[in-house]
Amino acid sequence: MGLLGLGTVGTGTAEILLDSAGRNPLIKQMAIHRVGVKSLDKPRAVDLPRELFTTDLESIVTDPEVDVVVELIGGIEPARSLILKAIEAKKHIVTANKAVIARHGDEIYTAANEAGVYVLLEASVGGGIPIIQPLKQSLGANKIQRVTGIINGTTNYILTRMQTEGADFDEVLADAQRLGYAEADPTADVDGFDAADKISILASLAFGGRIHYEDIEREGIRQVSVTDITYAEDLGFVVKLLAIAQRDEHTHGSLQVRVGPTFVPRDHPLASVNGVYNAILVEGEPLGQVMFFGPGAGKGATASAVVSDLLNLFSLLASDQKNPLLGCSHQHYCTITPISELETRFYVRFLCGDRPGVIGHLGTCFGHHGVSLESIVQIGFQDHLAEVVVVTHDVQEQNFRDALAEIQGESARDINIASILRVL
Amino acid sequence: MGLLGLGTVGTGTAEILLDSAGRNPLIKQMAIHRVGVKSLDKPRAVDLPRELFTTDLESIVTDPEVDVVVELIGGIEPARSLILKAIEAKKHIVTANKAVIARHGDEIYTAANEAGVYVLLEASVGGGIPIIQPLKQSLGANKIQRVTGIINGTTNYILTRMQTEGADFDEVLADAQRLGYAEADPTADVDGFDAADKISILASLAFGGRIHYEDIEREGIRQVSVTDITYAEDLGFVVKLLAIAQRDEHTHGSLQVRVGPTFVPRDHPLASVNGVYNAILVEGEPLGQVMFFGPGAGKGATASAVVSDLLNLFSLLASDQKNPLLGCSHQHYCTITPISELETRFYVRFLCGDRPGVIGHLGTCFGHHGVSLESIVQIGFQDHLAEVVVVTHDVQEQNFRDALAEIQGESARDINIASILRVL
Ligand SMILES: NC(=O)c1ccc[n+]([C@@H]2O[C@H](COP(=O)([O-])OP(=O)(O)OC[C@H]3O[C@@H](n4cnc5c(N)ncnc54)[C@H](OP(=O)(O)O)[C@@H]3O)[C@@H](O)[C@H]2O)c1
Ligand SMILES: NC(=O)c1ccc[n+]([C@@H]2O[C@H](COP(=O)([O-])OP(=O)(O)OC[C@H]3O[C@@H](n4cnc5c(N)ncnc54)[C@H](OP(=O)(O)O)[C@@H]3O)[C@@H](O)[C@H]2O)c1
Repeated sequence: MGLLGLGTVGTGTAEILLDSAGRNPLIKQMAIHRVGVKSLDKPRAVDLPRELFTTDLESIVTDPEVDVVVELIGGIEPARSLILKAIEAKKHIVTANKAVIARHGDEIYTAANEAGVYVLLEASVGGGIPIIQPLKQSLGANKIQRVTGIINGTTNYILTRMQTEGADFDEVLADAQRLGYAEADPTADVDGFDAADKISILASLAFGGRIHYEDIEREGIRQVSVTDITYAEDLGFVVKLLAIAQRDEHTHGSLQVRVGPTFVPRDHPLASVNGVYNAILVEGEPLGQVMFFGPGAGKGATASAVVSDLLNLFSLLASDQKNPLLGCSHQHYCTITPISELETRFYVRFLCGDRPGVIGHLGTCFGHHGVSLESIVQIGFQDHLAEVVVVTHDVQEQNFRDALAEIQGESARDINIASILRVL
Repeated sequence: MGLLGLGTVGTGTAEILLDSAGRNPLIKQMAIHRVGVKSLDKPRAVDLPRELFTTDLESIVTDPEVDVVVELIGGIEPARSLILKAIEAKKHIVTANKAVIARHGDEIYTAANEAGVYVLLEASVGGGIPIIQPLKQSLGANKIQRVTGIINGTTNYILTRMQTEGADFDEVLADAQRLGYAEADPTADVDGFDAADKISILASLAFGGRIHYEDIEREGIRQVSVTDITYAEDLGFVVKLLAIAQRDEHTHGSLQVRVGPTFVPRDHPLASVNGVYNAILVEGEPLGQVMFFGPGAGKGATASAVVSDLLNLFSLLASDQKNPLLGCSHQHYCTITPISELETRFYVRFLCGDRPGVIGHLGTCFGHHGVSLESIVQIGFQDHLAEVVVVTHDVQEQNFRDALAEIQGESARDINIASILRVL
């Protein structure tokens, strides 16, 4: 394959391909033949032979040895021209570039259909969250009614901090820029362009038609004030930048596609999606609601999505007949850790005769077996028995059981265990 | 295809296949050739020709006209024998039957690999939530560390009601049985067998090895008391029946697989999954955490998953080369509803000179344009201006804009709009 770009996502992708153990076995077969970058001198975090590198990206997309082109340079040009040239040369495309697809998807997909190649773009929306493939395949039985997403991590981070800290937009934006959560030029994120690119891609898949980018109603979060966020809370809402695509109930067949700051009821599944996380809620018939939640950006997460597209392509290219992604590829059994060796936290509730020194006795016995406690509290009384609740730190199940045996030993016949539950 | 079973899920599946408009175009090509049931006399909710029905299920799985067998009868026998016979006759299998896969997956997959057919089972875990295909494909780049699921709707429903109502297990179980959320014999659900079946399937996919069903540590929710749920809340937790499979950090390569009631920290993504909903959290490297949330059972949701497997099979069987599920199949553009015709709720904050009648003026103007209000409240003061917050019901954008224009008309120069946001 030919890799265009070895920045954040390109590096993450190469890291996965170079460390294939423990991942899908097909990954071992994926080799990087060429790497296109802007500067040959830049130090690279990933160990690839220098002779793979070139600044002549056109030579990659026309290289007969390359069957798949992974476009991770971003932006409109030269990404658009390179993708079109690669398609012309009958290469399959994997891209994380929502902007070029949202704005030039029409010519790209028309060219791909003519050339008989695939253009896969799982990484373009929702970072590591599988959403493109589910919309294309897993949810294909449904008539989709609506797709609602928190699909821009930067704005969700800013709104979350405005809400929790009561801080102003400008203040939080500056801090987010300092911390690397927002770009020096934040327009694409805070003015909603990025979310608009992404919802146009989701709408296109969900409703089976292309979207004119200019048709999308778009509003950013610059004008959202702390005052409104506070009133939202008083009224039972949180403010989120939502991207929504839905089939219009009145004008059959027509769609609404929009991006804007929105009051979301506190008990809505999207309301608790905070910080840089993304989530996409899909509503359809007969399915009802499903939600996909996860990291919307970042090196590893986005690369995970890029490689999932590569897996799809390689399973098609490698197999004459049987798709290795759908079959069962293992025959051995897993080794299971014996229960006595499990490590977890525990909650235990004791009912004890109310005599002095009970808590001391419990503490001592747990101590004997190396069971360290997070809390031990006498909470109340039940039927004249004192209720004592213990929460442990992570402990070995066997040690914990041994401590309980000692606690209930002959010197303490009036200590009963009312319940034991694990703690996540 | 041959359908074994036309109960809840079978009926839902047939309904999708008989109403293909607006769904993935491949669905039109799926024909039901045979239907196997227990009783020929039972009235059926779905309109299928009587001559398709038979009680001789063996004749279906050996029928040369049938290339895919959809097993939706449930239970171990005769499901197991029928699946094995179908595989022997080189039929692909789609099943929603977690029990037969968890307990006899070994012989079923071994037979399928020998026969060169697929056994697909998206519907067997998480109902309509896509989780099998994501684990097999979308997340394939990752080293999975842990899979944590709320994968039994009945127990989650019971625990949720115990928590919100402070009611006892027996009481809620009886009510759940009355309402159809729990079976007359609730053992499979409340004693954790169903969740154990499902986590063994997920563990097998996530960690690439088969699981001996007996190796799974399993505990149900019968002994969970309201007292513990209350203490959990005091300590910042909720109680959930979790199914967990994780790679052991200490004993490299060994797995922990268990089902049991567990204290879940209130801010954990799984803590807010309530009622009959299911959710599965997958943790992996380099991805981080992704969560899949949705309806874990029910006719339509489960059938959606069955048909997604059929889509995968038909795309393989139908295509010589190009996979129609991965390609782009549409060329036209979607029609977008003009913004003026959108219907949503709005939040508006006004800053007004503090004169009598302001709220009346606002109300009158909204009324003129048919904008009905959910609330209108004077909340506070800012810079000597009264702050009035309005939340509307669903209204047409154009009417709302017209009302605002009238509000700001010449008679009211001291009314400013501080912000407008949509409400979900
Ligand atoms: N970062 C994320 O978290 C994330 C998440 C989702 C999607 N994406 C998408 O992934 C794509 C890549 O993003 P990124 O963050 O990895 O970008 P990045 O870190 O800026 O890396 C861009 C790479 O492309 C190369 N490049 C840029 N312009 C070039 C040109 N004209 N000729 C040759 N090489 C050129 C750069 O070369 P040098 O190394 O020599 O400068 C660099 O290796 C974008 O479409 C982005 O929207 C990113
Ligand atoms: N229901 C859900 O929400 C759900 C969710 C996830 C997974 N599942 C799984 O889906 C499968 C089907 O569940 P379901 O709820 O649809 O079951 P169901 O409503 O009880 O339907 C079972 C169907 O199988 C037929 N059948 C049963 N035993 C038979 C036999 N020995 N010979 C011939 N036909 C037989 C029945 O025929 P008659 O109609 O003639 O009685 C009926 O049509 C199970 O594996 C279940 O675990 C169900």
